[in-house]
Amino acid sequence: MRFSPLFWPIQLKGSIIYILDETKLPQKLVYIKAKDYKDACSAIKEMKTRAVGQVLLVMYVFLLSKRQGINLIKVAKAINATRPTLAFKFLTDMVLSWDKSNSPLDKCILGFLEMLKQGRIKQAQDTANLLKDADVILTHCNVSGLMPLIAEFAKQQGKKISFYVTETRPYLQGSRLSAWELMRARFPVTIITDNMVAYLLSLGKVTKVIVGADHLTQNGDIANKIGTYQIAVVAKYFKIPFYVLCPPPSKLKSGKEIEIEIRPGNELKIYQGLYLAPKQVKAYYPAFDITPAKLITKHIYLEV
Amino acid sequence: MRFSPLFWPIQLKGSIIYILDETKLPQKLVYIKAKDYKDACSAIKEMKTRAVGQVLLVMYVFLLSKRQGINLIKVAKAINATRPTLAFKFLTDMVLSWDKSNSPLDKCILGFLEMLKQGRIKQAQDTANLLKDADVILTHCNVSGLMPLIAEFAKQQGKKISFYVTETRPYLQGSRLSAWELMRARFPVTIITDNMVAYLLSLGKVTKVIVGADHLTQNGDIANKIGTYQIAVVAKYFKIPFYVLCPPPSKLKSGKEIEIEIRPGNELKIYQGLYLAPKQVKAYYPAFDITPAKLITKHIYLEV
Repeated sequence: MRFSPLFWPIQLKGSIIYILDETKLPQKLVYIKAKDYKDACSAIKEMKTRAVGQVLLVMYVFLLSKRQGINLIKVAKAINATRPTLAFKFLTDMVLSWDKSNSPLDKCILGFLEMLKQGRIKQAQDTANLLKDADVILTHCNVSGLMPLIAEFAKQQGKKISFYVTETRPYLQGSRLSAWELMRARFPVTIITDNMVAYLLSLGKVTKVIVGADHLTQNGDIANKIGTYQIAVVAKYFKIPFYVLCPPPSKLKSGKEIEIEIRPGNELKIYQGLYLAPKQVKAYYPAFDITPAKLITKHIYLEV
Repeated sequence: MRFSPLFWPIQLKGSIIYILDETKLPQKLVYIKAKDYKDACSAIKEMKTRAVGQVLLVMYVFLLSKRQGINLIKVAKAINATRPTLAFKFLTDMVLSWDKSNSPLDKCILGFLEMLKQGRIKQAQDTANLLKDADVILTHCNVSGLMPLIAEFAKQQGKKISFYVTETRPYLQGSRLSAWELMRARFPVTIITDNMVAYLLSLGKVTKVIVGADHLTQNGDIANKIGTYQIAVVAKYFKIPFYVLCPPPSKLKSGKEIEIEIRPGNELKIYQGLYLAPKQVKAYYPAFDITPAKLITKHIYLEV
């Protein structure tokens, strides 16, 4: 089985954490070095890593901080303050509770990471089992290496799968990450802009929508990259199944309790130094949206 | 009444047609010069002008070609071959029929243009009449100067109107043109990316959607900039009225008969020389989509 670099974008080697710099893809496949929890928190805030990369980074930074003799409560607070929408507190509480118990933290974290890896591989396998030969998948944003893995499992089962990917403005994770990793793994992929979904679906060009989720609540609502909700509404209209690759559920009751991160409007107006809009115009940038459970055909759970 | 430069983006002065170069906005407000129908056709193909600008350009280029003694059938053929989705043939057939009749072509064309101008002003007035104080309008792409005019009429009636504008990838007419002309006319405007519509509507932040149309068919279907269909589906889901500023209907029976222009995928992948996606990836770029009449709350007709 081949893995996308995005499947496991964080590595701990000695006392350095290597973070795949997703802002540099697809032009450059480079890793930045974090030497402590402050560097790691900056990388999260600047979106150098995202989605599962954030979970891995949290785990590795606790490992490193423990070795460095840093107060883990301080580390947890810094991590919780980085970005609001992913369930960071759920993760940091878990690590702090391990640390309080008698079990060695190293073993707990490494055990969790191994379980996460196996759980994600199984999630890809479960998804492939749901697919048919010649399925055309529409995906949004990037599910950290799961899409090529799903296609790989499907291929092993003799099913040919192809993809459409929304470019996912403003950060372009669809074009820059998903399209890149699918091309790299030699699966057919076509990019569209975010506003083409309804037209594409009206032409019958897509058989299933599969997206990820940054947050799953107790009632089955999800938070995912802005635009997910819109695709779910459109998929419902055209009666196309809408599947979600979910993380473990948080303790929140419903999506209404999830805090949506509002990022600087400039991130909409400027791309790599180039202005895409008048300099003075107001811009609104909610980084995520909530897709209610009723629009989700099937949750594909991560079992850890 | 103040007018946006986009309301009447084409001028004929002597033997030169001045075309507002919409690709240079909002950074530069500059006009390119066309000295014959070939220059004019190039400007249409390269999307230097669009929407109503195309209609004006067709009319002025016939005026100019007549004066230059050029065969108007040749001119009509060249125009019809530029882009498929706007009803160019409807316009060129009209001009050729005027030319065949005994009436002087100059008077017919200038009369038509004056009627078009008055019709568009009335269309803005009709739209303003439909609005309420504090309405928040979501618009997509650019309706050639009508939005600031609508807001101006509403203001005269004591109604304060504000706007959200989708950036309208890949060409960014929303950010570059609509947001620019609304700001310039001092009306409140906020840009969003194309994938934020459902989330914005779910928050109750929008009271009405108003878009334009490049083509209206006999049954009320419209072709407009890619993304319009998606907004109509989402507006329906959230029960937000969806109004369309229409051109006169063509002879086509329904939207199924409209040919959708497919533009080069590179226009999605490259913006002003900057790659937004892997160089080799396949991209799909339908420039328009068809919104069926059943999703349109109200057609606001252009009476000419």
